[in-house]
Amino acid sequence: MSVTAPQGFEAAGVAVGLKSTGKPDVAVVVNRGPLKVGAAVFTSNRAKANPILWSQEAVRDGVVEAVVLNSGGANCFTGPFGFQTTHQTAEKAAELLGVSAGDILVCSTGLIGTGDEVFRSKVLTGTEQGIAELSDDGGEAASLAIMTTDSRPKRSAVTRDGWSIGGMAKGAGMLAPGLATMLVVITTDAVLDAAQADAALRRATGRTFDRLDSDGCMSTNDQVTLMVSGASGVTPDPDAFAAALADVCQDLAQQLQGDAEGASHDITIQVINAASEQDAVEVGRSVARNNLFKAAIFGNDPNWGRVLAAIGTTQAEFDPYDVDVWMNGVRVCSHGGPDAPREDVDLTPRATDLVIDLKVGAAEATILTNDLTHDYVHENSAYSS
Amino acid sequence: MSVTAPQGFEAAGVAVGLKSTGKPDVAVVVNRGPLKVGAAVFTSNRAKANPILWSQEAVRDGVVEAVVLNSGGANCFTGPFGFQTTHQTAEKAAELLGVSAGDILVCSTGLIGTGDEVFRSKVLTGTEQGIAELSDDGGEAASLAIMTTDSRPKRSAVTRDGWSIGGMAKGAGMLAPGLATMLVVITTDAVLDAAQADAALRRATGRTFDRLDSDGCMSTNDQVTLMVSGASGVTPDPDAFAAALADVCQDLAQQLQGDAEGASHDITIQVINAASEQDAVEVGRSVARNNLFKAAIFGNDPNWGRVLAAIGTTQAEFDPYDVDVWMNGVRVCSHGGPDAPREDVDLTPRATDLVIDLKVGAAEATILTNDLTHDYVHENSAYSS
Repeated sequence: MSVTAPQGFEAAGVAVGLKSTGKPDVAVVVNRGPLKVGAAVFTSNRAKANPILWSQEAVRDGVVEAVVLNSGGANCFTGPFGFQTTHQTAEKAAELLGVSAGDILVCSTGLIGTGDEVFRSKVLTGTEQGIAELSDDGGEAASLAIMTTDSRPKRSAVTRDGWSIGGMAKGAGMLAPGLATMLVVITTDAVLDAAQADAALRRATGRTFDRLDSDGCMSTNDQVTLMVSGASGVTPDPDAFAAALADVCQDLAQQLQGDAEGASHDITIQVINAASEQDAVEVGRSVARNNLFKAAIFGNDPNWGRVLAAIGTTQAEFDPYDVDVWMNGVRVCSHGGPDAPREDVDLTPRATDLVIDLKVGAAEATILTNDLTHDYVHENSAYSS
Repeated sequence: MSVTAPQGFEAAGVAVGLKSTGKPDVAVVVNRGPLKVGAAVFTSNRAKANPILWSQEAVRDGVVEAVVLNSGGANCFTGPFGFQTTHQTAEKAAELLGVSAGDILVCSTGLIGTGDEVFRSKVLTGTEQGIAELSDDGGEAASLAIMTTDSRPKRSAVTRDGWSIGGMAKGAGMLAPGLATMLVVITTDAVLDAAQADAALRRATGRTFDRLDSDGCMSTNDQVTLMVSGASGVTPDPDAFAAALADVCQDLAQQLQGDAEGASHDITIQVINAASEQDAVEVGRSVARNNLFKAAIFGNDPNWGRVLAAIGTTQAEFDPYDVDVWMNGVRVCSHGGPDAPREDVDLTPRATDLVIDLKVGAAEATILTNDLTHDYVHENSAYSS
């Protein structure tokens, strides 16, 4: 499992005191080749953290040697000093690995505004220690070191005809489109060039991580990186690779959803018979972001009126008096009016299925979200204090 | 105070059992003239309740004789039967008042999907009783009958040079732009024609009720109605009337904010030095809808990083590394970096002031919102069960 499942990768996770708990907080993932291909997608938030500003430039040439990731501080809105910290991290790793600093990506996660001299010193120490401890079964340790409020690590791997894909992710809050507060590293030993890697990554994330919308809040630090070692020597069928990559991304996205801060329900919102995929996504997202609907699900209340009220705020094509809504297999609303009684719906399981039938076309989309709970409020009211 | 403060209006509030508590639940406000001018603005939600569908048509000619309002049921997504209920309510009131049904507006509030035969029967009974009990000091009773989860009635009145304006409002959740879950009735004895009333109402609500965004959720039933009796005989200066009407609307909007479901902080978000008023509104609204920021304020945590992360999701003109943020008078972020220590900020008072200085222009806007609390989650997870 994890990022060292494919051939050609080494990883490590070390503890340097960025987390007050003393748990691992710096991870390093290194591509030993023969290929050093990389691709990455980043938060679409216009307020971007220093590691994002750095990594966006570093990945442009399609060459990535390694990724250094830290938890315990976002290094966002920390000014020129913070950017230098990221730069020095890349230079330190490059020096120790004997490669160019421009081929090192950096990721940070934690509290925004954290990035002082103590932070810098610890990150540099962690980079050094991590590289010293690199091993071809270090994927598990790396996945532990990127955790923040995650209750468990997120790892995934698939093996196909002679090649494999591995991945790790962290993320438990601020999960929204344009990525979430998530850091993801995916590795493969399949043979791909930079353009293929980039296209495959964008296609896979567009329908997986981008459709996870836990709380509508978009992070400043999100990054999903794909590294290609080509160590299997196998050139995969493009469609087979795309499908396998999407499987890994979807698996990790569902793990993020299942561990979202304070959530008690994992809600799958399937919008069907929409006029376009864009309409289906807009409708699904509007429901996923409706606090009243999310609080109702927390209370095991199949309040379909709040679903329709949320749909009404979109620009999607629909007739309010023709929509059907299903909750956990029960049609609670048909043609925009009450159908089965609320008592027929069992919302006690964590897995919650909402189906919205717009009846205007043939497009569909699925959005993953969570309910709004006391624990969500508690965790996010106490985060930095 | 309230809607019977101006001359020429009568009102009543009666209890007919729509509320399980037995509290008043049907209100009637009647314009005795001599003018019968009316204007109204409605929710911009595309899923509109039956009373909205009716009232939008009824107000088109600029003549409004009376408004009948009920709590205890939204009559939304109740199909043709529900629309007939609204129609019959207007006809009943018209018959008893000796006027045309097309000059009666209807408002409903409560659970979506509620509007069966029992509901209809009670609303019609309430209409009859309310009209029987009309009086020129019935404004207070009417303001009690429109309450839902409100903990207190909302009333306002101003008197100017020979004319006055009175108003009542209800609303405690689902407060968002395009109005909120609010019903508002405003009366005046000033002399205005329909076009003047409509223009003044749109101008006043655009910068008051439309800028109250408690929880980002848009209701299906919102309506703000202005009725003009002209009974003072005084034609006001248009600017003076606009200012007085805005004062009443702002007073009621602040009362709605102060009584928002479960809130423990009333947050005033002032965005200054924006490139345009539209930019300022977009920035303010993005912060007002950010659950992480709202939960932080609940926890008395001046987490300015979440403010900047929210601004980053907008299309507004700004440089993340030039923004200043003030909380309760303390500059916690300057030029997109940490400034005064968090400990300097006292967030224990209910009134919370957030100032965002974008430093790119001269426009500004103020958005009112609330924090995200355990009580909000509790009230909205238990609402219909």
